[in-house]
Amino acid sequence: MLSVPLEVNLSKRNHSGNKPDSPLMENSTSQSQKQTFLSHGSSSTTSKIKLYSHYRSSCAWRVRIALNLKEFRRLSPLGFIPVLVDGDFVICDSYAILLYLEEKYPQIPLLPVNLKKKAYNLQVANIVSSSIQPLQMIGLLKSIEEKVGLEEKLSFARHHITKGFNALEILLQKISGKYATGDQVYMADIFLAPQISNAVVRFNIDMSMYPNLKRINEAYLEVPAFQEALPERQPDAVTLDVTS
Amino acid sequence: MLSVPLEVNLSKRNHSGNKPDSPLMENSTSQSQKQTFLSHGSSSTTSKIKLYSHYRSSCAWRVRIALNLKEFRRLSPLGFIPVLVDGDFVICDSYAILLYLEEKYPQIPLLPVNLKKKAYNLQVANIVSSSIQPLQMIGLLKSIEEKVGLEEKLSFARHHITKGFNALEILLQKISGKYATGDQVYMADIFLAPQISNAVVRFNIDMSMYPNLKRINEAYLEVPAFQEALPERQPDAVTLDVTS
Repeated sequence: MLSVPLEVNLSKRNHSGNKPDSPLMENSTSQSQKQTFLSHGSSSTTSKIKLYSHYRSSCAWRVRIALNLKEFRRLSPLGFIPVLVDGDFVICDSYAILLYLEEKYPQIPLLPVNLKKKAYNLQVANIVSSSIQPLQMIGLLKSIEEKVGLEEKLSFARHHITKGFNALEILLQKISGKYATGDQVYMADIFLAPQISNAVVRFNIDMSMYPNLKRINEAYLEVPAFQEALPERQPDAVTLDVTS
Repeated sequence: MLSVPLEVNLSKRNHSGNKPDSPLMENSTSQSQKQTFLSHGSSSTTSKIKLYSHYRSSCAWRVRIALNLKEFRRLSPLGFIPVLVDGDFVICDSYAILLYLEEKYPQIPLLPVNLKKKAYNLQVANIVSSSIQPLQMIGLLKSIEEKVGLEEKLSFARHHITKGFNALEILLQKISGKYATGDQVYMADIFLAPQISNAVVRFNIDMSMYPNLKRINEAYLEVPAFQEALPERQPDAVTLDVTS
């Protein structure tokens, strides 16, 4: 199912404002196809960083949003799943990648300073990554379909998504603002955006049951870092559309 | 399946060395049954903290180990699942609880300072919490058994456990010492101990396939914080043995 893996190289955007028009769709091959240098902070230090992504993977999608927020931009496509290569260090798993990026590049925070607000972000992220996403994985659902049928597959996925969304909706009542935990996007939002979108598109979940989740998901559509991480805007999605 | 929930109250151990002999088995009812005060650092500040646990839940088990390492002790049993109540703040999810505890009570670290070593810990924790544990949950396996049978249920769980253990074994080759990421116990170990134990006890996984995991799991048995968090040493496990 997950064909045409994508490797993207990352470069830190110029903070002085000289941004390209459409940095995430940039596919100039005049840059190195393998690795590019990434500078952060004062640009007095540089390091290499590379993301292996796939346009349909919700885990890769999370990492794309985080990188966009931290103002990295992808320079050239190639290919694999959500693996971050930083110099000689390889790191898998979107949750671990996000916390790694957060600590190494703290300038634009993915977690709030306030301890309780931070804990809300980690809870939301984990409800998505441990209680919903593993139970709607394509491979798992395919094996359920083969063994018990298409209807069972869909009701299985819907059951776990709605169970998780019920918990998230209650959690967000206490803390949400324009976004999940206030008026700034954080890690909770990075996990929610791909999850809500997949729930609607792949499993036809009725979001009117979850007014907070619905409202904040609409707000994500206005945030450039979220817009640019959408699956349909990834170079490998474009390739697939052309070839399949 | 998860009956007789347990509520345990927590108190920070006295760092000056005046430890009770068996702090985790303490069940004196002369202490408050509902909440006790927890002091940390210089004991100039105090706060209330309470853990809702269950002896069989691997998520609760993780939190018990973390609390033991941070030298909290449980004072009196009562009951529910892995929920931490700190004053008026309620936090669910073992991963979020551990990172919350780590930041609020940093004295005995659950994560190393080194960024790459920290990333290894987060990766191990997430492979367990997102790629293994959700796919061996009692409720999920029960529904598989009902729909496709006992053998399918067991092979399903074993498939996901061995897939995860293969990944963990490779990951640990690069970094393990006496424990998962060196000679000190960290978050990776806290996630591995309950997972490996459950794999052996509940699913009869042959650990000789995973020499690193096998070796470090044996090392956990020597660590008091790990010993005292074992399911069979929990007051609700004792209660069940008596009543069922």
